[in-house]
Amino acid sequence: MVKRKGLLLVVSGPSGAGKGTICKEVLLKNKDINLSVSATTRNPREGEVDGVNYFFLSKEKFTEMIENNELLEHAQIYGNYYGTPKSAIMEKLENGQDVILEIEMQGAKQVKEFYPQGVFIFVLPPSLKELNSRLVGRGTETEEEIEGRFSCAFEEIKRIDDYDYFIVNKDVDLSVKELEEIISAERNKVTRYKEHIIEKFKEELQEC
Amino acid sequence: MVKRKGLLLVVSGPSGAGKGTICKEVLLKNKDINLSVSATTRNPREGEVDGVNYFFLSKEKFTEMIENNELLEHAQIYGNYYGTPKSAIMEKLENGQDVILEIEMQGAKQVKEFYPQGVFIFVLPPSLKELNSRLVGRGTETEEEIEGRFSCAFEEIKRIDDYDYFIVNKDVDLSVKELEEIISAERNKVTRYKEHIIEKFKEELQEC
Repeated sequence: MVKRKGLLLVVSGPSGAGKGTICKEVLLKNKDINLSVSATTRNPREGEVDGVNYFFLSKEKFTEMIENNELLEHAQIYGNYYGTPKSAIMEKLENGQDVILEIEMQGAKQVKEFYPQGVFIFVLPPSLKELNSRLVGRGTETEEEIEGRFSCAFEEIKRIDDYDYFIVNKDVDLSVKELEEIISAERNKVTRYKEHIIEKFKEELQEC
Repeated sequence: MVKRKGLLLVVSGPSGAGKGTICKEVLLKNKDINLSVSATTRNPREGEVDGVNYFFLSKEKFTEMIENNELLEHAQIYGNYYGTPKSAIMEKLENGQDVILEIEMQGAKQVKEFYPQGVFIFVLPPSLKELNSRLVGRGTETEEEIEGRFSCAFEEIKRIDDYDYFIVNKDVDLSVKELEEIISAERNKVTRYKEHIIEKFKEELQEC
């Protein structure tokens, strides 16, 4: 029997849309789904743990990984590097485990080039106004950073074309449910698992 | 604002796989989803109501509808005609209502030619053996009919390629959940609703 390959779920969208919260909830509720831990050179925010939220790396170490082609994607955002270590993810997918990758849009684009069979999900704010209040409320970015993010949010939304699904994040519980439903539907996609199904019935027919 | 178009959910698969039961449950639980009522020239089974389970038509009336191109699809199966009246469905889809169409595989193929943007869902039995016992247990077909259906079930399963999703119907409740999740995921498909989303944010931006 051919082994079922895991799903790579790439969750992205404008900053402040709430992709982090949604992914955290889905992971809490679904122990069979794995989180891909990203690497970054930015400073940890309060409460963030190395190896859990991110691998916090020096600029030197990060550059070394880029050179050795050990990253699925990487990007420089507001002066910091972010990236996804390749090997851990690929191993899980080969073993049939589903992996969630929560990343910025630049990174999602690179992942799509390398792994187009991933499931690309775009988390949207209910409105641009709401996005702005969330960024202000979060208080983790400077005013300048927020200004920069808000002005390009509409441009980012126009890039929805690169994604398979969207989630309008009005209510976290509802968004979590929608993401779970997308995952479930993808597990029932004919293009992904056709060979397994035909093979299974063929075996039964031969036993008759 | 451009109106959201409804989804046409085409549920098909080998006879006895359980597509009828699954659809009935999904319709009971989701009052916003409509059932497309098919037309047929076969005799009503016990308990079946005209206009609810099927429109039971004479062969003459059915032939007239074929000639007037009033059917989305039609097929002759075991000597009887089955078909789907076109106008009622198209009207609902235009109004943004989702419609479930539960039909035999011949019919599903024709619907796909006419309306490829439909969502095509293939309901599978857990095994060929299980399929056989279900057909015997149902007791609505003659032994000859069952023999004919079983022998071509594997050939039918190989035609899974024409479908977007599969549901292995081991347990009705689970299958109902899977169908609901497929419907929900399709409502979050970027290709279907991209224009609406971009337009909405564009309007907000212009108001700023």
